[in-house]
Amino acid sequence: ATLRVGILTVSDRCSAGEAKDVSGDTLSAYIQSHWPQGKVTVRDCIPDEKAQITNVLMDWTDQERLDIIFTTGGTGFSPRDVTPEATKAVLDKAAPGLVVAMIQGSMQSTPMAMLSRPVCGVRNRTLIINLPGSVKGCVENFMIVEKQLKHAVDLLRDAKGNIENVHS
Amino acid sequence: ATLRVGILTVSDRCSAGEAKDVSGDTLSAYIQSHWPQGKVTVRDCIPDEKAQITNVLMDWTDQERLDIIFTTGGTGFSPRDVTPEATKAVLDKAAPGLVVAMIQGSMQSTPMAMLSRPVCGVRNRTLIINLPGSVKGCVENFMIVEKQLKHAVDLLRDAKGNIENVHS
Amino acid sequence: ATLRVGILTVSDRCSAGEAKDVSGDTLSAYIQSHWPQGKVTVRDCIPDEKAQITNVLMDWTDQERLDIIFTTGGTGFSPRDVTPEATKAVLDKAAPGLVVAMIQGSMQSTPMAMLSRPVCGVRNRTLIINLPGSVKGCVENFMIVEKQLKHAVDLLRDAKGNIENVHS
Ligand code: NA
Repeated sequence: ATLRVGILTVSDRCSAGEAKDVSGDTLSAYIQSHWPQGKVTVRDCIPDEKAQITNVLMDWTDQERLDIIFTTGGTGFSPRDVTPEATKAVLDKAAPGLVVAMIQGSMQSTPMAMLSRPVCGVRNRTLIINLPGSVKGCVENFMIVEKQLKHAVDLLRDAKGNIENVHS
Repeated sequence: ATLRVGILTVSDRCSAGEAKDVSGDTLSAYIQSHWPQGKVTVRDCIPDEKAQITNVLMDWTDQERLDIIFTTGGTGFSPRDVTPEATKAVLDKAAPGLVVAMIQGSMQSTPMAMLSRPVCGVRNRTLIINLPGSVKGCVENFMIVEKQLKHAVDLLRDAKGNIENVHS
Repeated sequence: ATLRVGILTVSDRCSAGEAKDVSGDTLSAYIQSHWPQGKVTVRDCIPDEKAQITNVLMDWTDQERLDIIFTTGGTGFSPRDVTPEATKAVLDKAAPGLVVAMIQGSMQSTPMAMLSRPVCGVRNRTLIINLPGSVKGCVENFMIVEKQLKHAVDLLRDAKGNIENVHS
């Protein structure tokens, strides 16, 4: 079955209508044209407020039961950047391998990637991945994890028939 | 002195007798034949239950006073996979360098390694390392950290005579 | 404006006068001669005691309002090594990208770097970075992050004029 994907843009300026959500639009278009396994079924754009971020993440995991949520924005060092902290607050399980893969991979494009602060993990049966808010960083980091997402969701769904390992 | 090593296999199927503990057996044989500094002194196989995992880890650190515990299994994305969460719950100190080394190193074999969720760290004077449950991943990740383990245990034992740095 | 930098050496032996603070001295000299953007405005040397470390970190972030604090020492596996735990206790936000960059970068010098346990992140508007206590490791890890620090501090100060990304 197709993976049901949500994109949550976290940005004061975009949510106030002062800037276009270029990262969210670009990621959504990229998924539609390059990733047949996934379909963006819901999007939202909210300000850099921890409570609002956790509320959407809890709704999209517990009620909407999405397979994957990508956040974009709010992962930097500005005082308003709280997306990683909001994400960590709702996770059941951390996924440090995805964090290491994205940081290591994007540092090959620019050493500035060492300033990203992504959190990745699982709540309920939904995988949540923080992407950077820049258009380039957002798509570049998606591409680093893209090919592993189907397998991760198969495991989350406990679709054991697809799993080869005796125990994983 | 020889390092006293425990191997804890975490697997519903192996503990129920429905599958052989191939990873634990293979790791144990590898240590015996390739790693003269270490000796496997205790093994166990338990289901993917957080309370059972924490109980064994506390017993092996606080009572048995092992030098190193390797867990194998339960580090993936299945709902039953809770080994990292059980490990984190008993740690005094995290060891992110071992996590980064294992993820980065095993990604050179397969990008699927970005889906592993290992936790490493110290409880009391025991080093605890989560290894994947697949036979290949289990031994491969052991080999990534193998050469540093003696030095880590020397530090844990506070055997300062072996330490060169003024302060570490 | 010049970045105001603090160097906190954590070492039982140095604080007791039993050893020279070679790492702190070397890092300070390196910053003075190689990094015109930063100026070391305060230094201290304290024992490996968690409460003392957290007290200095809180004073230097909340009262002194330094831009960056480097700790050196106390990041290893000895029972007395508690710098990462003390740092984590005072952070508002984690910066895993800096951790991954330092571990990956210093592993290219020596695989022993996988035993380092650095914590990096933000408290208030101050960036805190744990460096190893060895002279070589201390300067080497500083050099890995050096070029990104000005940008990080610009973001912490919310100096939006310097930031190119629409949302970060
Ligand atoms: Na972490």
